[in-house]
Amino acid sequence: MKRTMINEVIGFEAQSVTVSGWVHRIRKLKSVVFVILRDRTAMLQLTLSPESFDSNPFRLESVIEATGLVVSNTNKYNNVEIQVKSIRILSEVSEDLPIQINGKNIDFSLDTLLNHRVLALRHQKESAIFKIQAALCEGFSTYLRNQSFTEIHTPKLVKEGAEGGSDVFSMKYFGQTAYLAQSPQFYKQMMVAAGLERVFEVGPVFRAESHSTSRHLNEYISLDLEMGFIECETELMQLETALLRSIFSHIYNTCTTELDLLGVTLPIIPDEIPTIKLREAIEILKTQYGKKTELEGDLDPESEKLIAAHILEKTGSEFLFLTHYPQEKRPMYTMPCGNTETNSFDLLFRGLEITTGGLRIHNEEMLIQNMRKKRSRTRKL
Amino acid sequence: MKRTMINEVIGFEAQSVTVSGWVHRIRKLKSVVFVILRDRTAMLQLTLSPESFDSNPFRLESVIEATGLVVSNTNKYNNVEIQVKSIRILSEVSEDLPIQINGKNIDFSLDTLLNHRVLALRHQKESAIFKIQAALCEGFSTYLRNQSFTEIHTPKLVKEGAEGGSDVFSMKYFGQTAYLAQSPQFYKQMMVAAGLERVFEVGPVFRAESHSTSRHLNEYISLDLEMGFIECETELMQLETALLRSIFSHIYNTCTTELDLLGVTLPIIPDEIPTIKLREAIEILKTQYGKKTELEGDLDPESEKLIAAHILEKTGSEFLFLTHYPQEKRPMYTMPCGNTETNSFDLLFRGLEITTGGLRIHNEEMLIQNMRKKRSRTRKL
Repeated sequence: MKRTMINEVIGFEAQSVTVSGWVHRIRKLKSVVFVILRDRTAMLQLTLSPESFDSNPFRLESVIEATGLVVSNTNKYNNVEIQVKSIRILSEVSEDLPIQINGKNIDFSLDTLLNHRVLALRHQKESAIFKIQAALCEGFSTYLRNQSFTEIHTPKLVKEGAEGGSDVFSMKYFGQTAYLAQSPQFYKQMMVAAGLERVFEVGPVFRAESHSTSRHLNEYISLDLEMGFIECETELMQLETALLRSIFSHIYNTCTTELDLLGVTLPIIPDEIPTIKLREAIEILKTQYGKKTELEGDLDPESEKLIAAHILEKTGSEFLFLTHYPQEKRPMYTMPCGNTETNSFDLLFRGLEITTGGLRIHNEEMLIQNMRKKRSRTRKL
Repeated sequence: MKRTMINEVIGFEAQSVTVSGWVHRIRKLKSVVFVILRDRTAMLQLTLSPESFDSNPFRLESVIEATGLVVSNTNKYNNVEIQVKSIRILSEVSEDLPIQINGKNIDFSLDTLLNHRVLALRHQKESAIFKIQAALCEGFSTYLRNQSFTEIHTPKLVKEGAEGGSDVFSMKYFGQTAYLAQSPQFYKQMMVAAGLERVFEVGPVFRAESHSTSRHLNEYISLDLEMGFIECETELMQLETALLRSIFSHIYNTCTTELDLLGVTLPIIPDEIPTIKLREAIEILKTQYGKKTELEGDLDPESEKLIAAHILEKTGSEFLFLTHYPQEKRPMYTMPCGNTETNSFDLLFRGLEITTGGLRIHNEEMLIQNMRKKRSRTRKL
């Protein structure tokens, strides 16, 4: 009999259906056995006679297929239940579970969770993270496609690191040395200049750096975009604001259950995200938060938190654009603004930098000059 | 003045607009200079007076912004043209182009094309490839999302190669050795078993193998899917048929210009793709194409072409499923079918294998047995 997904069973009252999934709970009473079945869509109560269960028993997290009559029943999981006529065990669990995954929370150490990863991921709170992640990527791609961005996939094995620096992984490549791409930066810019004008990529990037902090990962999925024909970085910041709004709205609409499970409230994105220059932020930190007198040209994690809290209090916004980063802190292709600053920005969310952007130099001569300047500065160091 | 995209200029007749893009052609006559401008959407004829052009000249492929009056004019590129009032050069080309990119074709050696990649990509035939590629990925993802697949992104730095073999890239990883993932295979299976049931991924895979053939690449974007709760591989083959139909239909609808440019006719996907067992294919090749008497358990590239041509002649289909590959040619997780074969398939398109699939073993004991069997076979070799 064709499988019915649990979230569709409610349409089949008084009929016989077949459902499949994982055994989430088992409660044996004298006259009845309640089995809670979980599939990718929802959970459902099955009722079996004790005799039928005992003749063909199964453990928690076994994968089973059950056929039976759908009847109205208000329970914790659904408004129907199934009175089971037959059960087929598709994949049997042969021992007791090493971790409990049908509780409200899954409170184990990270090591334990990772040692039993496939099992731990079955906990709805763990699984919810992946569903939200998928919605996030979909929201990102959909919005950008609608703004006529073209999706690209750029090489991950490269001849040079994107922005220099020592944090690249190297590998042997048929007698030569190749590197894992830290960023699709140069490829993005080339595809813009190649005529696509607007491109985006969702793909892995690699950083050979310390990774036991909340700000570093050796490998992560980078959401990248690049666009041509803009006059100033505020156009990018506006696009990003609209993009974030669209992504959050997509997550809100498609991940209600997951957000509820995780107790997450999505942030409100103001019509205009507060924007201050980095040097103004540093000034605020120095004058109003005295201990930060040594700041110069960049914020440390603690300062990011402080300035974010400051802006939250003043404006109610959890987002903050910091702009005009100094030239020495930005790559050589960043458009200079005056003698020391650049047309660039970071976006902070709840005190953490989540994106970086800026206007690129589009003049060949200026770009070459800036490369020379960067090189001589590097040599001096 | 706000930029108008070229494909929208036609709505602005008798009005003034600003357009930007690349200088595709320049034709100087005595009384007028025709400039063809190209942006990401289309091409457009601009007319300038010779005096105005000479006072502010520019070369092919310069990026310019032009403001002027939209007037009706039937020309090769559009049904309107712009009588230019002012031109701003956004990015100047300072020398003659090393390769011509405004011809109908771009006939240079691969080396030349790659040495001038950004420029070569501006040729519409080169650029079309990337637009079709993007449409393909979008078609793949959209169809699968609609079938309730969840998009995942799996690690590319791994501790072991996915399926053994020597064709993995290795790298130093903080004093240990890591490998670049050849396939998201195990992660896909784990995410299915973790409860997502249906997952897909669009991401890079890496193979350290000879790559100057039409069948090998060191790095490519793999379109992967995995689904649970199927009884046999024909369900997968049906899904794939519908998926391909959906992808091609999406490309057909969104890439008309690009397909025309490349002279590509999309294949027709039959309601049911012809399906024969590998051993039947080998039998046909042996009896009807005598020279192939040495075939055993797999097809070489020439045999793939022969059997594809055979099926095309018999059925009119450019697609062919070959099924029941022998156990020794398939990974240890492939479901055995009888004593020597497996529930597996390859899809050939125009004589080239384009996908591989199969039923996985979902029984723990059988999987362990199969691992042992594979290991002892490997040891014997």
